Amino acid sequence: MKTRAAVAWEAKKPLTIDTVDLEGPKAGEVLVEVMATGVCHTDAYTLDGLDSEGLFPAILGHEGAGIVREVGAGVTSVKPGDHVIPLYTPECRQCKTCLSQRSNLCTAIRATQGKGVMPDGTSRFHCEPTGRSAPSGNTVYHYMGCSTFSNFTVLPEIAVAKVREDAPFDKICYIGCGVTTGIGAVIYTAKVWPGANVVVFGLGGIGLNVIQGARMVGADKIIGVDINPAKQEMARKFGMTHFVNPKEVGNDKVVQAIADLTDGGADFSFDATGNVNVMRQALECCHRGWGQSIIIGVAEAGREIATRPFQLVTGRVWKGTAFGGARGRTDVPKIVDWYMEGKINIDDLITHTMPLEKINDAFDLMHAGQSIRSVVIF
Amino acid sequence: MKTRAAVAWEAKKPLTIDTVDLEGPKAGEVLVEVMATGVCHTDAYTLDGLDSEGLFPAILGHEGAGIVREVGAGVTSVKPGDHVIPLYTPECRQCKTCLSQRSNLCTAIRATQGKGVMPDGTSRFHCEPTGRSAPSGNTVYHYMGCSTFSNFTVLPEIAVAKVREDAPFDKICYIGCGVTTGIGAVIYTAKVWPGANVVVFGLGGIGLNVIQGARMVGADKIIGVDINPAKQEMARKFGMTHFVNPKEVGNDKVVQAIADLTDGGADFSFDATGNVNVMRQALECCHRGWGQSIIIGVAEAGREIATRPFQLVTGRVWKGTAFGGARGRTDVPKIVDWYMEGKINIDDLITHTMPLEKINDAFDLMHAGQSIRSVVIF
Repeated sequence: MKTRAAVAWEAKKPLTIDTVDLEGPKAGEVLVEVMATGVCHTDAYTLDGLDSEGLFPAILGHEGAGIVREVGAGVTSVKPGDHVIPLYTPECRQCKTCLSQRSNLCTAIRATQGKGVMPDGTSRFHCEPTGRSAPSGNTVYHYMGCSTFSNFTVLPEIAVAKVREDAPFDKICYIGCGVTTGIGAVIYTAKVWPGANVVVFGLGGIGLNVIQGARMVGADKIIGVDINPAKQEMARKFGMTHFVNPKEVGNDKVVQAIADLTDGGADFSFDATGNVNVMRQALECCHRGWGQSIIIGVAEAGREIATRPFQLVTGRVWKGTAFGGARGRTDVPKIVDWYMEGKINIDDLITHTMPLEKINDAFDLMHAGQSIRSVVIF
Repeated sequence: MKTRAAVAWEAKKPLTIDTVDLEGPKAGEVLVEVMATGVCHTDAYTLDGLDSEGLFPAILGHEGAGIVREVGAGVTSVKPGDHVIPLYTPECRQCKTCLSQRSNLCTAIRATQGKGVMPDGTSRFHCEPTGRSAPSGNTVYHYMGCSTFSNFTVLPEIAVAKVREDAPFDKICYIGCGVTTGIGAVIYTAKVWPGANVVVFGLGGIGLNVIQGARMVGADKIIGVDINPAKQEMARKFGMTHFVNPKEVGNDKVVQAIADLTDGGADFSFDATGNVNVMRQALECCHRGWGQSIIIGVAEAGREIATRPFQLVTGRVWKGTAFGGARGRTDVPKIVDWYMEGKINIDDLITHTMPLEKINDAFDLMHAGQSIRSVVIF
């Protein structure tokens, strides 16, 4: 079949809207009509050429929602008409990691997903690179196993979460990445307890979702840290109780400011900045004895985190999270429920919507810091 | 009263055996006759002047066992004649940390203990510094709240663990530090599960106790890493199943060697070396998704640990432990029971014993790498 898609032909160039050939789903795969997709920093990171494993040409996008239109042989868990959210972190329930019950980082299709192809080693997308450079021939690569910047896409069955049919695509698409990453970090990775003191570094889209996750589970103080005081208002709306601006208190006094607010340190801290120096502050502002710091942000290639081992020997714990520790097929439908029940707020985070033809505007808004989240509606 | 003690008058000088004045126990304190004491690397670290907070003159020693001879006003949990192990990590059961039930790092007497004095701010030890440099006047400081290199010492009630009376002092003194640190790191901090794959870096006294702790809780593979192949024999006796010598496999291939042995990485790793580069290897050899690395070793002042945040984002956890995460009054008596029941081996770890007059030999043996543990018997 043919499908309309925004194609990234090479790094650092705007996407172009092309008509692409899409093969139907093979065994264990499903064809999904993408109804809406968010545009995430990770898409920009790859498009900007910062991902050393980024492949071009590719159809980016990994934060979508849509409808199953066709299933390949052997598919049993979804059927045409089902509403689904594509999962860049699949959940096979059969690999060593899934069976460990200790991690969401399913490895069933990791090798091929990282190479931009389906589990059989080939791409379902093809497009003649008319007048363009494309060493791949007419192959267009998948991206993060999702490629939600295409109106239709093919995914492995284990990489779609079936969700309720009354949930609006243009909102729940954000659960495909940002919402789950932030809320999941609180609930699944950190397991924040009621009454805990929580600190969130970076009040962008992920940070706001950490905040509302902390509020949802009954955290006591929820302290936001950001160098932009304009972020305060929205953060307070999502549940932030205290604000620390490193530019006001002094960057070298942030840890002390948090210790003062929390009687000695945070029970949990989250880095949603990707800055390795902030990651260190996030660890060191934790309470001696039990404070845990969770890294969410993706650091620049090659950068390292550091601290004195004394920080750990005296009881602090350094962790990270990917996709919020959520098991996609199991947990994503629950988060959709929480949205529909009004437990979490997504509407206010989606500041811009646009048709596919305007998708490059979403990248511009992100780089200009004018959006929290832009959503493309097909 | 008078007591015989080995006094550290200044850094980098041998201890001298002196007769020291010891005041009786004040309210909440107990007088203990020390029957035996181990000599630990931490004592040597302070004596060598490497501890920036080390005070002189002081009576070192923190790994003892003895008998309560007198109790101060208000003491209810022990009585004269009780056998006890002094605790450098006390357990008040009333401070924020004890009540958190999330950490063993009781803070009740932390401030004064760090200053070498009892909770009332004064020392019970005095000695004329005849012919010696002693800016403290005739005050001799306590050390780690224990000072077990004195035949008699005074401790807060919350800093002694009452233990069974049939346990031999010259063996169970080692539970006052090294045994509990190694076994506790496995049991209380890491909570190693049956069937886990465990890696231990550094096969000295602590590492051997990690190994026997891992064996006790039913670990599967127990991999020891050391640059000295002579450590293998003893480690295998304590439960090590595999040995990796970085000098044989290449220091840059240690992580891969462990991944190969464990189908992808360790469930738990322990650093018992104090070397920050080894601490990094210990983290990075952990299994993606859930592997935990626990720092036990004390690093040189100012040295830092580092890694790429990707290591944590993909599920590894970096922790530390002090006194093995054990709550002294609650857990130490249990470990004494385990020794008496034959669940753990202490006898083979105590390679040398000596009278107090020969205590400097214990430091010499340690520095020469000839002892696992030396014990002074009073």
